[in-house]
Amino acid sequence: MTKVAALAGGVGGAKLAYGLSKILPPDDLTVIVNTGDDFEHFGLKICPDLDTICYTLAGLANPVTGWGRENDTWNCLSTLKQFDAPAWFNIGDADLALHLERTRLDQEGHPLSEITQQLARKMGIQHTVLPMTDEEVTTIISTKEYGDLDFQEYFVKYQFAPTMTGIKLDGIDWARAPQKVIDNLNGCDIVIICPSNPWVSIFPILSIQDIKQILAHKPVVAVSPIVGGNALKGPAAKMYREMGITPSALEVARQYKPYIKGFVLDVIDEEQGDILSQWGIISMVTNTIMANDEAKVRLAQEVLEFSLKLV
Amino acid sequence: MTKVAALAGGVGGAKLAYGLSKILPPDDLTVIVNTGDDFEHFGLKICPDLDTICYTLAGLANPVTGWGRENDTWNCLSTLKQFDAPAWFNIGDADLALHLERTRLDQEGHPLSEITQQLARKMGIQHTVLPMTDEEVTTIISTKEYGDLDFQEYFVKYQFAPTMTGIKLDGIDWARAPQKVIDNLNGCDIVIICPSNPWVSIFPILSIQDIKQILAHKPVVAVSPIVGGNALKGPAAKMYREMGITPSALEVARQYKPYIKGFVLDVIDEEQGDILSQWGIISMVTNTIMANDEAKVRLAQEVLEFSLKLV
Repeated sequence: MTKVAALAGGVGGAKLAYGLSKILPPDDLTVIVNTGDDFEHFGLKICPDLDTICYTLAGLANPVTGWGRENDTWNCLSTLKQFDAPAWFNIGDADLALHLERTRLDQEGHPLSEITQQLARKMGIQHTVLPMTDEEVTTIISTKEYGDLDFQEYFVKYQFAPTMTGIKLDGIDWARAPQKVIDNLNGCDIVIICPSNPWVSIFPILSIQDIKQILAHKPVVAVSPIVGGNALKGPAAKMYREMGITPSALEVARQYKPYIKGFVLDVIDEEQGDILSQWGIISMVTNTIMANDEAKVRLAQEVLEFSLKLV
Repeated sequence: MTKVAALAGGVGGAKLAYGLSKILPPDDLTVIVNTGDDFEHFGLKICPDLDTICYTLAGLANPVTGWGRENDTWNCLSTLKQFDAPAWFNIGDADLALHLERTRLDQEGHPLSEITQQLARKMGIQHTVLPMTDEEVTTIISTKEYGDLDFQEYFVKYQFAPTMTGIKLDGIDWARAPQKVIDNLNGCDIVIICPSNPWVSIFPILSIQDIKQILAHKPVVAVSPIVGGNALKGPAAKMYREMGITPSALEVARQYKPYIKGFVLDVIDEEQGDILSQWGIISMVTNTIMANDEAKVRLAQEVLEFSLKLV
């Protein structure tokens, strides 16, 4: 069998990871997840991307929002608002349990990779989900209006309205990949970069030295999160524009150029494949919109078949 | 007007405090609450007695249990159980908001007395509720079966089944009363010790040096939590027996002897009043069972009138 490591952020990445999990046996898929968005809120350790990936793989995710749990209730959050507490981050009542238990295990001294595996198992996830690092890395969005913001403040509290002037990854230079990430990356045949925000979901993962070094020796295929010049969700396209770049699948591929052998484009961006081939990147064109579970599995299957040709 | 300071623990004390709050204007009642039961759980700062007092005064308490909020939901707790988390402490979803916001304010560096006043105001409480101290005091129950247990472990996790061999108040020697407690105690005309567990609710308060010193100069009246040899709720009577004392109102009065001028007995214990008078304690006999809100107000009124005679 082919062993796959997938790099993912939140909602977009979770969709492809879900598709891959439906066609690969548990031992053959490791999802390595961005933790740059992690933050502390009301004393709780919250890992939004890990949560989204886990809820999605476990079949517990809210299908409308992509984040949080299906059929959750909001009694705690609405009470927090009655206390005039800073309740801008949406935490459902059942969702809270995950943050509480993670916080408890963290305070007991367990590393995040171990906590994540334990919680994932309790949710019935059979594939491996791991954080990119056990150490603290904090994605800071520098903005024109409010100065430096923690990613979740920028993303949720301010609904990514402020103008981004730069990104910093606090702690990235010292962050190491957990041993299990290193082992599973070393043991994989293919690395798939899921269609997550390159700036804030994928680059944090690619910026971990251990991971970067292993990827240099692996066939890496990325799926574009930019389709027809726009992001399906979130601030990716807006970030390109504010960094002075016209957002396109091609620009995503340009950023990933040092890492990737193959690139998956949406049919709407088909003509950009020519330039990719000039750059020595092999492209595949398909419908990359994952509107339902069937589409997630279909795209995962196509990406996997494409990747196998590049090995 | 008469200014009253009431010392209280959880459910039993909250009932009399509620009654007092219905007959005294906001400026004339300060409830000073035990914090020896406070503990950290899933990273949250939980203050069970403060919560019970506040929910009761705010009219938010669950009338069946006495603790927690009325009409709360249990989505978080049931999900914690699915994670096999140590979910032995019952926290409802709305109740969680109070612990989260207190934890947030605590981590911001606010003292507990300030946090408590802020949260109480948000709940619509007009009277003053204060913790006995801003510092950490931990009531430890030494048990035959499990050694030393934090009070909430003993009380909730083990349902006070273990045999108590002793009580320790960790941190009590260094704990100071908050300035506002000192001011309000100094300014009060009467101190009422509510019918809470003497061992674990009232003695921690009486063991704070600042409070003890002020009480020596105040008329103090206690209401017996032991009625007919039993506690209406909780382990008080069991604790007396395990400490080699036959539980009775008289034994409660014996413990409070250095502090009190008056003592309120239930009609069922009327004959014990004679011995009290030999000790120089003035007693009042009445129905002390507070089965409903009317009874709480009636008892509060009677206790208040009795206390005024002792000033």
